[in-house]
Amino acid sequence: MKQAPVYFENAFAQLNEFIQTHSDKKIMFLVDENTHEYCLPILLAELPEIQDMEIIEIPSGEDSKSIEIATQVWISLSELGADRNSIIINCGGGVVTDFGGFVASTFKRGVKFINVPTSLLSMVDASVGAKTGINLNHLKNQIGTFTQPEMVVINPDFLLTLPDKEMLSGFAEMLKHGLIQDVNHWKQLKKISALNPENLAPLIQASVEIKKAVVEQDPTEKGLRKILNAGHTIGHALETYYLDHQIQFTHGEAVALGLILESYIAVMKKQLSLNDFEEIKSVIDKFYTKVDLPKAEQILPLLMHDKKNVGKEIQCVLLDKIGFCNPEPVNISIAEVDLAFDFYRNN
Amino acid sequence: MKQAPVYFENAFAQLNEFIQTHSDKKIMFLVDENTHEYCLPILLAELPEIQDMEIIEIPSGEDSKSIEIATQVWISLSELGADRNSIIINCGGGVVTDFGGFVASTFKRGVKFINVPTSLLSMVDASVGAKTGINLNHLKNQIGTFTQPEMVVINPDFLLTLPDKEMLSGFAEMLKHGLIQDVNHWKQLKKISALNPENLAPLIQASVEIKKAVVEQDPTEKGLRKILNAGHTIGHALETYYLDHQIQFTHGEAVALGLILESYIAVMKKQLSLNDFEEIKSVIDKFYTKVDLPKAEQILPLLMHDKKNVGKEIQCVLLDKIGFCNPEPVNISIAEVDLAFDFYRNN
Repeated sequence: MKQAPVYFENAFAQLNEFIQTHSDKKIMFLVDENTHEYCLPILLAELPEIQDMEIIEIPSGEDSKSIEIATQVWISLSELGADRNSIIINCGGGVVTDFGGFVASTFKRGVKFINVPTSLLSMVDASVGAKTGINLNHLKNQIGTFTQPEMVVINPDFLLTLPDKEMLSGFAEMLKHGLIQDVNHWKQLKKISALNPENLAPLIQASVEIKKAVVEQDPTEKGLRKILNAGHTIGHALETYYLDHQIQFTHGEAVALGLILESYIAVMKKQLSLNDFEEIKSVIDKFYTKVDLPKAEQILPLLMHDKKNVGKEIQCVLLDKIGFCNPEPVNISIAEVDLAFDFYRNN
Repeated sequence: MKQAPVYFENAFAQLNEFIQTHSDKKIMFLVDENTHEYCLPILLAELPEIQDMEIIEIPSGEDSKSIEIATQVWISLSELGADRNSIIINCGGGVVTDFGGFVASTFKRGVKFINVPTSLLSMVDASVGAKTGINLNHLKNQIGTFTQPEMVVINPDFLLTLPDKEMLSGFAEMLKHGLIQDVNHWKQLKKISALNPENLAPLIQASVEIKKAVVEQDPTEKGLRKILNAGHTIGHALETYYLDHQIQFTHGEAVALGLILESYIAVMKKQLSLNDFEEIKSVIDKFYTKVDLPKAEQILPLLMHDKKNVGKEIQCVLLDKIGFCNPEPVNISIAEVDLAFDFYRNN
């Protein structure tokens, strides 16, 4: 399935052109309080053509991906006079683009939306794939749709507005793209000395294009696309666990941790070489602080709720080597997760 | 766009075959308390192949098409172990099929669902068109998706389980199908002496096929499909008004009333002949009891929220003659609505 266009060069010009051809439509901006303050002014300065606009703000953070906030935004859209021809521009990180995509794809059975990702994570991950979603009682992205935005506008200048730890969050998805599909991308990433916009900006487009190529071959995750879930089975469960326990832990930190733990399981299953595993672990350890893991059994219920599961098995995609992930999911046991946790604690 | 298959003859056999080819999947039945008691036993008796099933019941009635009930059902699906491969079978009237389709199309970004409409209205109207939806603060179907069921299973025997007034509700959509697109269907319907399953069952398939042909030409309501909204601009607003005032009034009664009122406006606009209008009114008056209308201005805010509106105009599709609705929406004024209300009150 053809994915929405992702613009890097002249991205704002493309957006301006779109707005000019839809000048009779109401534009609704969705932001959080941070992107409202730091990103929306940059964006609006580039969009002189807008005639009829409204701004809807949601609180920043994962908690906004809730049914209650979605309901509030649907009501705001309704009250602000959004109709089927209105256009929603989601300006923010992955929470804003996932959430805004879901709200747009279900409001009056679907209105057009555009994503302007402002975090590294949303640029390299949420910008492609047409996944929209909100959480159900802290189970991540349980409710959502597959809906394409009209376009995705990527401008690395927004990264200058981000706190450093947000770089860590997006960087994990870039590492994953290298690990699952492109050893050269991996090699470029591991050479990076510090995670700053200057070092990262030149690699964003390559990372997005890896994901885009995968998704275009398998838009609804029947086969190949499953490789994008590398690190995410255990990563998502840990992310939810820490969220439930009010421990600050970004999606990317969870994915980086998940990549180590799942790669260890791949070694136990004799699927991945120990050499490759050690390289993966050393690169991730270079950037990411070690964390205290809960007991494996504490995340079992969360592992059982993974959307990728079929029936009662915990399913996971694992690396065959650096640069290649096997798309065929394998069952992993809680005992294997437990062993991987033990290894991580002791190394 | 190809619509989902709608089975009439051997409908249960088709459903059985589907279940046999998905025998490893969990089947989740969605019902309300009435269809749980009266329809599900009939359905299950015909489906001996089911191995793994669960039943989720929602309260009957329009109030169930809420975000709160949707959230409860998403949680139930999650707790009962539904995964991406599960299949939801919606067994009920339009509330159950609209609601169940929405819940299915958004649970884990979409699971397969099958509609088994049990009311005349859901057979002739909700069975085709891929519209799913719930209400937002009593604004009907503000939240929803366009998603095809896997199949629609129509068995007129379910009509025997229905109270008489439910016949009135579905019959209005059948009348509309004749009025907008097929003068012969209209002629057959106006000959009916009493609205019972025996008289109606033979006409259901023809009525469904009119709608299906329209929808297949214009699945997302860009052009021709708008004719299916005949009677619905004013009809929907009145339906919501009566619902808000705890007055029992079915969707079909609202549509029948909307057809009279909008046809009167078509006469005022010199689009429809007085002869045709009088024939329409006399046929509808034969079956539907006269009701007390509110003041036109009381439904103005509801008219303004119609999903079909663009900008601040109230838009409406109107008949050119019996058997032909003009798909180009026209603006109607509150003054015209007021005049139509006056006419209805006095005739």
